[in-house]
Amino acid sequence: MSGFGFELLTTDGRARSGRISTAHGVIETPAFMPVGTAAAVKAMTPDAVAETGAQVILGNTYHLMLRPGAERVQRLGGLHRFMNWPGPILTDSGGFQVMSLAELRTVSEAGVTFRSHIDGALFELTPERSIEIQDILGADIVMAFDECTPWPADEATAAKSMRLSMAWAERSRAAFAGRAGSGLFGIVQGSVYDDLRRESAETLVEMGFDGYAVGGLAVGEGQETTFRVLDTCLPLLPDDRPRYLMGVGKPADLIGAVARGIDMFDCVLPTRSGRTGQAFTRRGAVNLRNARHAEDPRPVDSACACPACRDYGRAYLHHLVRSGEILGSMLLTWHNLTYYQDLMAAMRDAIAGATFDAFAAAFAQQQAQGDIEPL
Amino acid sequence: MSGFGFELLTTDGRARSGRISTAHGVIETPAFMPVGTAAAVKAMTPDAVAETGAQVILGNTYHLMLRPGAERVQRLGGLHRFMNWPGPILTDSGGFQVMSLAELRTVSEAGVTFRSHIDGALFELTPERSIEIQDILGADIVMAFDECTPWPADEATAAKSMRLSMAWAERSRAAFAGRAGSGLFGIVQGSVYDDLRRESAETLVEMGFDGYAVGGLAVGEGQETTFRVLDTCLPLLPDDRPRYLMGVGKPADLIGAVARGIDMFDCVLPTRSGRTGQAFTRRGAVNLRNARHAEDPRPVDSACACPACRDYGRAYLHHLVRSGEILGSMLLTWHNLTYYQDLMAAMRDAIAGATFDAFAAAFAQQQAQGDIEPL
Repeated sequence: MSGFGFELLTTDGRARSGRISTAHGVIETPAFMPVGTAAAVKAMTPDAVAETGAQVILGNTYHLMLRPGAERVQRLGGLHRFMNWPGPILTDSGGFQVMSLAELRTVSEAGVTFRSHIDGALFELTPERSIEIQDILGADIVMAFDECTPWPADEATAAKSMRLSMAWAERSRAAFAGRAGSGLFGIVQGSVYDDLRRESAETLVEMGFDGYAVGGLAVGEGQETTFRVLDTCLPLLPDDRPRYLMGVGKPADLIGAVARGIDMFDCVLPTRSGRTGQAFTRRGAVNLRNARHAEDPRPVDSACACPACRDYGRAYLHHLVRSGEILGSMLLTWHNLTYYQDLMAAMRDAIAGATFDAFAAAFAQQQAQGDIEPL
Repeated sequence: MSGFGFELLTTDGRARSGRISTAHGVIETPAFMPVGTAAAVKAMTPDAVAETGAQVILGNTYHLMLRPGAERVQRLGGLHRFMNWPGPILTDSGGFQVMSLAELRTVSEAGVTFRSHIDGALFELTPERSIEIQDILGADIVMAFDECTPWPADEATAAKSMRLSMAWAERSRAAFAGRAGSGLFGIVQGSVYDDLRRESAETLVEMGFDGYAVGGLAVGEGQETTFRVLDTCLPLLPDDRPRYLMGVGKPADLIGAVARGIDMFDCVLPTRSGRTGQAFTRRGAVNLRNARHAEDPRPVDSACACPACRDYGRAYLHHLVRSGEILGSMLLTWHNLTYYQDLMAAMRDAIAGATFDAFAAAFAQQQAQGDIEPL
């Protein structure tokens, strides 16, 4: 089994295009990873996910350890086989969901104990256990276990939390050592404080990881702050390792982050929005629940080749959303994931052609035109 | 546009195989029609429905007239185009759902007035309006408007209800006259009373329809009574017209009805069951929610070629059902519709080979073996 690797192909300003190689295939970057929380990308078959252009998906350690259980997935042949996704999988460390979902949480230097939000069962996550779970799931990209700093946090709290994450990163690295075929990413923390972000980035680079993530953003701090944090910490990371902005974001967030040197993203936005009637288009977001679509035969986006745009009009999608039909969630999720993958492909092309700035300007202009094109 | 036609191909005892031709394609009989209540077969794309082998689907006049509205569907190009189903569509008359779903219902000889269960809006359905709605939706097979007799009903109530339906059948026929390209079916009523069923069948045959349905069954009377009613009324119907048993049923119900001369079925059972974790197999029904499937890597049915059986084990489907993942509904609906279509194809083959009795006996034996085959 070949291991993890990254090749930087082109740069255009600070924007980068590259290739991540894994045992389950290649990921072209900048890449967007659809979220497959509970061993499924919601409302999508894996075939459909692949048809959107996605080359890698994300699995959630927290959800999978609770149900069906990591060891059960292992006995059933690992996560790829269990969920019938043959391509690369990145798993998160569980740190973020433990903070946002678990009950009766106790954090110590050793790790976190908590109760399942599903049935109240008691669990423990430590750096060592998180790495073990991700390994037995069969992840191609493994994330270091971290504490996701709450937001807002004062500087002292953020510093303490970041330094705990750095200690856990070192333990994650030690637990990961010797495991072949996958890559381990460290996660830069430090909330909105530039000095803490710098300290975190430098600490992780000193340890040495296969890739570097920026965590603890997109939690309410705003796009301007997100971008400032990226401007602060990305220059400190080595060029020959991929950079992953966790949990981001809207199309304009992705473009701004790629412009600053980010290579990878994950976000529930395209899938979750698809289940609530919202579609992303070249001209901005469209709410299909809105009555103005009730008799509109035009596709959501005439430039999109997904089944929702190819086979149906807005009037039909509006009807499905209003009727609560599962097919509405299926088609709009398919569309949104296609939109996100098309956007990533367009960014890769623009970087290859050294036209990224022009691409970003044209994108902003088009989004400002309103969501329906002239008849 | 070619019109409606029926060709009887083979008989084996009272079982029949044939071909219905419509403007949107051929339907091989015996046929099972998946239910697409609100212009969608729940949790399925039309492509997926076609892949299961379905050649015709059913649309519900009651649901479509309430939302999105029949005239709106007409303005959007008709039901086939609206929902992207290019094959034949049968629409019911609305009579059954008016009785089971509508609020503040008033039945008179003229028709039924009622309030929408969605928003309380006032509607009227008459034989003339039901035929008009089905026509502007673009149905290939149109059903006469009837009153679905409540069950249980005493004989006097059942007689009065049946005779009202016969008067409405005559008005439906008059309203339908001159409409090209589709076929009109009359509906035999009369509850569980053989003399009423005979009177109803003879009355309809006297009027003359393109096909004949048996309605008001599968409402709680039990399989033995259903079959007795079929034994009573099917011999009175002309051989050269298709016969449709409405709202039925379980696999064994379909086999027993085909044995008695039924050509067409519709039922929500495969789709609804798919959304609640139940799968139909050669060895009976399986509840995937059951804990005994949690680590079972075997497919739901190893003889089934559907994506759920081809790509996934019971353990994964169990996980999806327990987790409330939409993908579980999608895969189990796909499986169940495939099972139903495979069953119809096997019955057509058995009739063509004059082995229907042996087929039915083998089916019963296999279902009795328990739902999991030996490892």
